[in-house]
Amino acid sequence: MTDDRIEIVEVSPRDGLQNEALILSTATKLELVRRAGTAGLRRIEATSFINPKRVPQMSDADAVAAGLGRGGGLRYIGLALNGRGYARAVAAGMDEVTFVVVASETFNRRNQGVGTFESVAALGELSGTETPAVPVGVAVAAAFGCPFEGDVPVARLMEVVEACMAHRPSELTLADTIGVATPRDIKERVGAVRRAFPAVPLRLHLHDTRNTGVANAWAAFEAGVRSFDASLAGVGGCPFAPNATGNVATEDLVYMFERSGVMTGVDLDAAIETARWLDEQIGHPAAGRLMRAGGFPN
Amino acid sequence: MTDDRIEIVEVSPRDGLQNEALILSTATKLELVRRAGTAGLRRIEATSFINPKRVPQMSDADAVAAGLGRGGGLRYIGLALNGRGYARAVAAGMDEVTFVVVASETFNRRNQGVGTFESVAALGELSGTETPAVPVGVAVAAAFGCPFEGDVPVARLMEVVEACMAHRPSELTLADTIGVATPRDIKERVGAVRRAFPAVPLRLHLHDTRNTGVANAWAAFEAGVRSFDASLAGVGGCPFAPNATGNVATEDLVYMFERSGVMTGVDLDAAIETARWLDEQIGHPAAGRLMRAGGFPN
Repeated sequence: MTDDRIEIVEVSPRDGLQNEALILSTATKLELVRRAGTAGLRRIEATSFINPKRVPQMSDADAVAAGLGRGGGLRYIGLALNGRGYARAVAAGMDEVTFVVVASETFNRRNQGVGTFESVAALGELSGTETPAVPVGVAVAAAFGCPFEGDVPVARLMEVVEACMAHRPSELTLADTIGVATPRDIKERVGAVRRAFPAVPLRLHLHDTRNTGVANAWAAFEAGVRSFDASLAGVGGCPFAPNATGNVATEDLVYMFERSGVMTGVDLDAAIETARWLDEQIGHPAAGRLMRAGGFPN
Repeated sequence: MTDDRIEIVEVSPRDGLQNEALILSTATKLELVRRAGTAGLRRIEATSFINPKRVPQMSDADAVAAGLGRGGGLRYIGLALNGRGYARAVAAGMDEVTFVVVASETFNRRNQGVGTFESVAALGELSGTETPAVPVGVAVAAAFGCPFEGDVPVARLMEVVEACMAHRPSELTLADTIGVATPRDIKERVGAVRRAFPAVPLRLHLHDTRNTGVANAWAAFEAGVRSFDASLAGVGGCPFAPNATGNVATEDLVYMFERSGVMTGVDLDAAIETARWLDEQIGHPAAGRLMRAGGFPN
């Protein structure tokens, strides 16, 4: 291990809340972002600029963007699925955009209405030919499995990654969107991507749906990944619903990494406190463990 | 990896149910053991022979032992904390005994009323000098941290392990009794034990209290461990109680290992079905994830 420090990108305001039944007020979302920043989470996926008819949880994207606190090294990411969303994110003053391409054809069509390589082409229009207004990273969703197609072959993933990389994204995120990856998959796929593109900043987006989120984060750390998406309290999936799909809990990652000597920059007690607060806001018990068990040693 | 096969020891009838508020009937416990066996769990910690005043959940140990199904390669372990418990386990027809010694002095005194090395001496009386009636393994509890003393230094753990190993136990279990270990701890402590005692069969007892159970199992697999304790549904800790302390869920381990190409001998669907059944019996939602999410691909 050459670098015992990682970055956690807080995605609860976007991916977490997007998958909750209860829609929080804009003020509560901004309070979440503020509390996350105070706990040490300096890079925050604040919202997504997508069709509000399809994702009503994100219909206040512009209002959220307008209310974000500034300074102190905080950086805000906006999610986009196409050029229109990208333009909205830039206009709203986001510091970065994460553009989504889905590794499997069926899921890409269901998620963004076009085929995978049409989404790749849309990415190219933003990031490929001239300097974009803000850094544009790409997240390859369903990189470890698809809810419609099942297994996503490594060859297919690499084909999609290579097509994206031709447009020189600022960052590449591999997303385990439905929480099916295991440490073996992480090593195999992260390894393949790093061998093919050793220079690109690599980020991993994990869900804890099948209890592999923390294991996958550690496997990815050992494979060289230093940036991880997570959501406070593990919001995003009701533990009582079939196919719960919450993000791995921020504070659970912080515990595992910090107790393993890897610095996260996040204060565990503050993260737990914010997770407990968020757990109350969403109206059902989220899946995070540290907010119930507490750290160790006390 | 030289051997892509592991064993899961089902401990829900003992450690899982011991930590549940609701006391299940003997008939329900036996139904659990039967269902676990049918799912492919062939080595089962069926009960513990301890003071029923201190652990009323286990007061029917003799009745459970008398009702166990036999044949088909099933092996039953009884837990004991002292010579009296060992004698009861042998009399009840258990195939093996796991004898507990706690790595930290305070916890050993609270758990079994004597100091750590007095428990080691009691182990010696059973296994050290002549062939015991049944194989006697030792489980070193709080091997990764103590609820009373906090950190347990590696040197202290090794001192206790060495004292136990002098009595030639049939197996050595390292137990993360309160669920505080991380993959780094696993590598460090499993590595130290394996270097000192390369020949002893090593087993790992994990709790998922802080969401590190699956990560720790994978780290231990990579470090050479091939035997893991787990409980169906992750019973043993209420997710709504502070300091929930459930065992890592059997079916969650099965998913992670099988999807990584490591055979467990357990049928995932049958394990999920039994976990859901057990979840209903205990009267509150247990922490296992696979029983809610289902396997992948479907």
